[in-house]
Amino acid sequence: MDYNSMDTEIEALGEPKILSPLGGGEKSLTSQYFIPDNTRILIDIESNKLIKMVKEGEIPPSFEKAGPRSKIFFDPSKLRCAIVTCGGLCPGVNDIIRSIVFEIYYSYGVQNIYGIRYGLQGFIPKYGHDVINLKPESVVNILEMGGSILGSSRGAQSIEEIVNTLKKMNIGILFMIGGDGTLMAATKITDAIKKGGLKISVVGIPKTIDNDIFMVSRTFGFDTAVDIATQAIKGAHNEAIGYPNGIGLIKLMGRYSGFIAATSALAQQNVNFVLIPEVDFDLEGPKGFLNVLEKRLHLRKHAVIVVAEGAGQKFFETDNNERDESGNIRPRDIGWYLKDKITSYFESRNIKISLKYIDPSYMIRSVPANANDHIFCSFLGRDAVHAGMAGKTRLLIGHWNNYFVHIPMSASAGKRKKIDPNGKLWLSVLHATGQDSFKNE
Amino acid sequence: MDYNSMDTEIEALGEPKILSPLGGGEKSLTSQYFIPDNTRILIDIESNKLIKMVKEGEIPPSFEKAGPRSKIFFDPSKLRCAIVTCGGLCPGVNDIIRSIVFEIYYSYGVQNIYGIRYGLQGFIPKYGHDVINLKPESVVNILEMGGSILGSSRGAQSIEEIVNTLKKMNIGILFMIGGDGTLMAATKITDAIKKGGLKISVVGIPKTIDNDIFMVSRTFGFDTAVDIATQAIKGAHNEAIGYPNGIGLIKLMGRYSGFIAATSALAQQNVNFVLIPEVDFDLEGPKGFLNVLEKRLHLRKHAVIVVAEGAGQKFFETDNNERDESGNIRPRDIGWYLKDKITSYFESRNIKISLKYIDPSYMIRSVPANANDHIFCSFLGRDAVHAGMAGKTRLLIGHWNNYFVHIPMSASAGKRKKIDPNGKLWLSVLHATGQDSFKNE
Amino acid sequence: MDYNSMDTEIEALGEPKILSPLGGGEKSLTSQYFIPDNTRILIDIESNKLIKMVKEGEIPPSFEKAGPRSKIFFDPSKLRCAIVTCGGLCPGVNDIIRSIVFEIYYSYGVQNIYGIRYGLQGFIPKYGHDVINLKPESVVNILEMGGSILGSSRGAQSIEEIVNTLKKMNIGILFMIGGDGTLMAATKITDAIKKGGLKISVVGIPKTIDNDIFMVSRTFGFDTAVDIATQAIKGAHNEAIGYPNGIGLIKLMGRYSGFIAATSALAQQNVNFVLIPEVDFDLEGPKGFLNVLEKRLHLRKHAVIVVAEGAGQKFFETDNNERDESGNIRPRDIGWYLKDKITSYFESRNIKISLKYIDPSYMIRSVPANANDHIFCSFLGRDAVHAGMAGKTRLLIGHWNNYFVHIPMSASAGKRKKIDPNGKLWLSVLHATGQDSFKNE
Amino acid sequence: MDYNSMDTEIEALGEPKILSPLGGGEKSLTSQYFIPDNTRILIDIESNKLIKMVKEGEIPPSFEKAGPRSKIFFDPSKLRCAIVTCGGLCPGVNDIIRSIVFEIYYSYGVQNIYGIRYGLQGFIPKYGHDVINLKPESVVNILEMGGSILGSSRGAQSIEEIVNTLKKMNIGILFMIGGDGTLMAATKITDAIKKGGLKISVVGIPKTIDNDIFMVSRTFGFDTAVDIATQAIKGAHNEAIGYPNGIGLIKLMGRYSGFIAATSALAQQNVNFVLIPEVDFDLEGPKGFLNVLEKRLHLRKHAVIVVAEGAGQKFFETDNNERDESGNIRPRDIGWYLKDKITSYFESRNIKISLKYIDPSYMIRSVPANANDHIFCSFLGRDAVHAGMAGKTRLLIGHWNNYFVHIPMSASAGKRKKIDPNGKLWLSVLHATGQDSFKNE
Repeated sequence: MDYNSMDTEIEALGEPKILSPLGGGEKSLTSQYFIPDNTRILIDIESNKLIKMVKEGEIPPSFEKAGPRSKIFFDPSKLRCAIVTCGGLCPGVNDIIRSIVFEIYYSYGVQNIYGIRYGLQGFIPKYGHDVINLKPESVVNILEMGGSILGSSRGAQSIEEIVNTLKKMNIGILFMIGGDGTLMAATKITDAIKKGGLKISVVGIPKTIDNDIFMVSRTFGFDTAVDIATQAIKGAHNEAIGYPNGIGLIKLMGRYSGFIAATSALAQQNVNFVLIPEVDFDLEGPKGFLNVLEKRLHLRKHAVIVVAEGAGQKFFETDNNERDESGNIRPRDIGWYLKDKITSYFESRNIKISLKYIDPSYMIRSVPANANDHIFCSFLGRDAVHAGMAGKTRLLIGHWNNYFVHIPMSASAGKRKKIDPNGKLWLSVLHATGQDSFKNE
Repeated sequence: MDYNSMDTEIEALGEPKILSPLGGGEKSLTSQYFIPDNTRILIDIESNKLIKMVKEGEIPPSFEKAGPRSKIFFDPSKLRCAIVTCGGLCPGVNDIIRSIVFEIYYSYGVQNIYGIRYGLQGFIPKYGHDVINLKPESVVNILEMGGSILGSSRGAQSIEEIVNTLKKMNIGILFMIGGDGTLMAATKITDAIKKGGLKISVVGIPKTIDNDIFMVSRTFGFDTAVDIATQAIKGAHNEAIGYPNGIGLIKLMGRYSGFIAATSALAQQNVNFVLIPEVDFDLEGPKGFLNVLEKRLHLRKHAVIVVAEGAGQKFFETDNNERDESGNIRPRDIGWYLKDKITSYFESRNIKISLKYIDPSYMIRSVPANANDHIFCSFLGRDAVHAGMAGKTRLLIGHWNNYFVHIPMSASAGKRKKIDPNGKLWLSVLHATGQDSFKNE
Repeated sequence: MDYNSMDTEIEALGEPKILSPLGGGEKSLTSQYFIPDNTRILIDIESNKLIKMVKEGEIPPSFEKAGPRSKIFFDPSKLRCAIVTCGGLCPGVNDIIRSIVFEIYYSYGVQNIYGIRYGLQGFIPKYGHDVINLKPESVVNILEMGGSILGSSRGAQSIEEIVNTLKKMNIGILFMIGGDGTLMAATKITDAIKKGGLKISVVGIPKTIDNDIFMVSRTFGFDTAVDIATQAIKGAHNEAIGYPNGIGLIKLMGRYSGFIAATSALAQQNVNFVLIPEVDFDLEGPKGFLNVLEKRLHLRKHAVIVVAEGAGQKFFETDNNERDESGNIRPRDIGWYLKDKITSYFESRNIKISLKYIDPSYMIRSVPANANDHIFCSFLGRDAVHAGMAGKTRLLIGHWNNYFVHIPMSASAGKRKKIDPNGKLWLSVLHATGQDSFKNE
Repeated sequence: MDYNSMDTEIEALGEPKILSPLGGGEKSLTSQYFIPDNTRILIDIESNKLIKMVKEGEIPPSFEKAGPRSKIFFDPSKLRCAIVTCGGLCPGVNDIIRSIVFEIYYSYGVQNIYGIRYGLQGFIPKYGHDVINLKPESVVNILEMGGSILGSSRGAQSIEEIVNTLKKMNIGILFMIGGDGTLMAATKITDAIKKGGLKISVVGIPKTIDNDIFMVSRTFGFDTAVDIATQAIKGAHNEAIGYPNGIGLIKLMGRYSGFIAATSALAQQNVNFVLIPEVDFDLEGPKGFLNVLEKRLHLRKHAVIVVAEGAGQKFFETDNNERDESGNIRPRDIGWYLKDKITSYFESRNIKISLKYIDPSYMIRSVPANANDHIFCSFLGRDAVHAGMAGKTRLLIGHWNNYFVHIPMSASAGKRKKIDPNGKLWLSVLHATGQDSFKNE
């Protein structure tokens, strides 16, 4: 990746001039904890590359380190802020809501915190959704709940109306928890805010269970998702070995990237085939997947297949018409497609198989965060508050090289992180499964 | 139910004349533990009914109590026995295998225990499946494994070939773990054994995750199934409340009975609608399900629906042709059918909903047993061994009024237990959900 | 047990004359669901015993079946009721609170439901605890919380003051969730109520994680407790096999009975020794436990021991003084006592062992109920409401021969259920562990 | 930390000259995957520091990146290697054993893999422990087992005897999974190997559930430990809120560092006090812990305290004698010490409390790894194999800034990682708990 041309500077609403309430007093420790803006975390940390760059006079790309600043932009006693959660469910959303509320309330003394209901819809008057007044006592017990206490929705809404609502509500910081679409909307919202001369900070916390936000090494909920996905794989394995020529086929989330599929396969090491969007594969032909699967069954009597939902989308281009005629109930669903293809392949070869298809997606998205994600989310929420209070805007709270950092929305929105087919993760999957390329010449 | 005409006598291969090795010696306690054959457990235990019957000179129906007998039929040093597991996976199958092996090996000293692979197929030479020699050390660690270490298969096989194999292998006791189909096969096998003048005991352990074996109050794996099903319901609930007009639709197992659906709805008390095979319902019309669902959404903005796979099969009679045309990929699947019906209903009413469909069946069947089923299975296995060693045959090990009992196969095979729509279970579901009858006049 | 002399009649405050709101109307099913008072469940259900009794003119003992009655005693519109939870934590307490509130509010229309805080203390003015107004919305989400939302406390309080408070609050039904001590208090409270000519129904729901309430086959929370206890046993097993001469020693709850210890040992079948209060054992001597343990280590290199907290109390009689001198921090704690004895025994024999002591008690008591207990508790709560509304008093909701029944407090309070050393449970433990009697002549 | 003087160079047995079997052939992808030795990961990645160093002509410290090398030192067909696991149990040990066996067997073709039993004892003839022949089929199913299939032991053994055994067994690579003591032994073993002119590579995989290995950002098993620890905290919270003045006191692992205590407190955000070895605290006095606890109880009626086992060791210096007299059963156990101190403090103030003490340590250590640790361990095992095959020695496989790296044993052994009282982790704990310093002037 060419990080060098990437913009890594963080915008601000103005100069923060108010002394942070976090410093001083009895807990003097905290004052040492303040992060200066010029503390930056290198993006590429391979030593030799780095030394070469510096010696050649280049400045190696880096991200601003997240954390509390000694001076803040907003006056806590007057500030009103809002939280909105958008898109699909993801474990940890409630953790972040709780973490934001606790930090901004107890550490900064901000008392007006509003929860916007049902995603961006909540900003649009015609939907008539109410606004929730968030207090520590209303969120203290939400850690063990899956979903989002604010509710969510999908789809775009009028940027103008959103900004109007923010204005009317007199919001100073808007915390947006959402995926790539939400970040795109967030960028437009900040544009409109700027154009309108408003002083509203927009802080994004990237949410995608697929873990495919560009320049963000890990998104919250992913660890939990892998946890639960491995249980589905165990089940598939038991079904596969339980019958002659048993096949367990699991579809996991991952529209554009196969992180959940690949990582879960590594966690539960009895997967035999992993199919992901990043790696092309053929079904037919001597090296095609179906033929390899047949060989595997011949040798071992069972097989476990994990397929990411975005894998093999090429098949739908050619098969499209056919599917439309049959009612189009499951358009472009690679899981059902594979199920049908495998079934008819073995039928045509007169080989009896026992295929079990498992789609645990909604059971994964809707669970509460595990311990690891609880912690991760508590940091994300706190650092989002620090960034917002400092008047920073148009940024994401990300995680890079094990540090929490500020990432400009422009550096991430509209691009996607993908599995490198030559990288450690995918090659480890190849080792663990022993699978081949499924590509004919 | 008319229990009175039911045959409750247990057949035996002959008179047991060998002193059980369980009695005597240091563990003299055990000898007190022997259960005489005439210890019987009443089937109907309502006091007044019972007293009336006895006074009128009738003999109230009862089952033989399971447990070790003081005299056994088979000579342990010569006995060879076999275990076979048939049909769908169910939590606890491995527990029962382990329990049988441990009890017959350590308590009775039987050393030749064979595991038949892949269900009834394992008896049929043409499949070429091997036979597994089962020893305590090979099954000691299988408790935490889901599935069946022997494998399973569905479908009938030639009774003649099965009996031939038993004869060739010189089997004395055949333990059959399987559902209603298996019990039917077992009955035929015992017929053929009898006709052939063979001395082979056939002991069934009824397996059906649906818990619908007639005259058996609880089958193993059911408790575990409900455990896991409640997790799916929690997920569905989170999805439902997460979106405006959110609907969580979960299909649970239960072809002919709704025990898992009803019981899980009681365990996880945020289900709003439960649809089961035993209770008819309409979709259309003023009191039909769709209209009631609309009212619910109007009032509460979300709904959680649990449907047993065998519910609403009447819809497929009329809609059959239509479905056939569309490829018939998921014939008679009430889950997808409801999903389609709900979706098009609200589309036609121009109401935006967010429906999430969850089918956790294979994730439920394939898990290991929970603690409760571990214990239950360990008793089932042990009592199966005691019955077999005593030369009893053509019987099931069942559980009735909290006692383990011997049930003649003829009393159970081919009939099904169903939820009583006027009974405590279903009426509790009605209370818990507050749901109505969904029946137009 | 001699059930025959036991009083099984249920007291009532008066004749119920009000038509139950559960019957009639649209849900006409419910009316068929009403249980007449003369529907009774036999206590001993061995067929031959029973027939003999009836033929000899005796009336076999039975319990009244629990469930809704067609006529009720209290006018729902005027009724005020209270719930109190006493003694140690137990999984499922919140389930029962929720079930009572939902049933009495929605089915009967009672709107004044008070939660008494911190057990019996909550009735005593000097403690100054507040009373909680319980509504469906305040308890709807408490299923997944461990503990008791009302709080609890131990110890007796003045019966007079309790009854005064009930009077002042104008309570009609008091639901008491508690153990043996609470039932004793409940009996005295009903005495005082009677003497005072008050019309207050007292309905007990027996709570004891030890499962040792007399005449109650299963108490809520027990199934969950066994679930969690098996996890501790797995850990102990791993520790034991992880080291040369590794010993895993787990102390489980069970002051007067070893049900949790015995049942958990059956669930997790790698326990080698189970010590319970009901079965005496020696430590020293050729057949004593220490010597047998040594032999086991010699043969198998590891051992897992489960001890119920009430086992071996005889050792404290002789060792008492010695313990007092050493500070008496953990008096009569058989876990630490065994740990010390085993350690010094092997030290004296110059054998190196690696003993790990695990006491999971507080981790077990404090978890939320599992699915099975969720269901069980929801029935207990509902049947408690039905009994109370019908004006019944001085009774427990119990479970016997798989039916929910009414048990007079007098039949149970002050007695304890114990493991029968000749019964199926304990002999199964002997089989599963292979353990001996640990008794010298 | 002064990384600059730290030795980061990795020793090797000689130049690797054999072409790695991983490259070439059909899976040509893999060849691109080879990591050159000069790919190094920066240790400190703060951008400005780094740039300054380079500009001043210094070489910033870095670690060699782990992964497969294109050339290897050992001939796979002749190589014999051994695995030993030492010290306390830790989730993931079996994962690493499995990962090593699979990688070295399938990827490199090494067939002779020996499992040394019971830690370093297994090398010493006098103990008479056998050696286990490890094959993929013998380790394929060990992922879900806690503990170590090889067993472990504590304590030093003769370095000479160990090296003699290695020599006799003709071992080429020794994989040592163990904590700080093991790494010290490993260093001595490599010294003796070198002195003896032997060609034996020693590769360490640092194991400490406390996560306190110096220069290693995360050790395996830690994530799982936090997972389970949070369950104990939930229980303690339920016990605390369940009684008037309820106190839940949990002791967690952490002899020299409080990582588990601090991290678990962040995961389960209802902890009120965290006590760790790195932060001194007073018990007595106006700002002492006991006084602060009293204030908390006065305000909130309950408190949850997490204490790391190594916290407050200073108290044992003064109180030592007293403890010795009382039998010295639990010397220097801060958990029991705090329990006693809190109890007597409130007794002396005549305040009734209800304290529950929970020590889940052995239940935490002995569980199987969670999904996250499964994956982490699979990488550690594979990278250990790659390092060993390349002839590298005297190194650890570590994780730093999100990369797997080679760390010289000398850089880590004998030092410990500790929580920085001014760092993000601890200050987040202070925020989450709201706790003060507990230090009098």
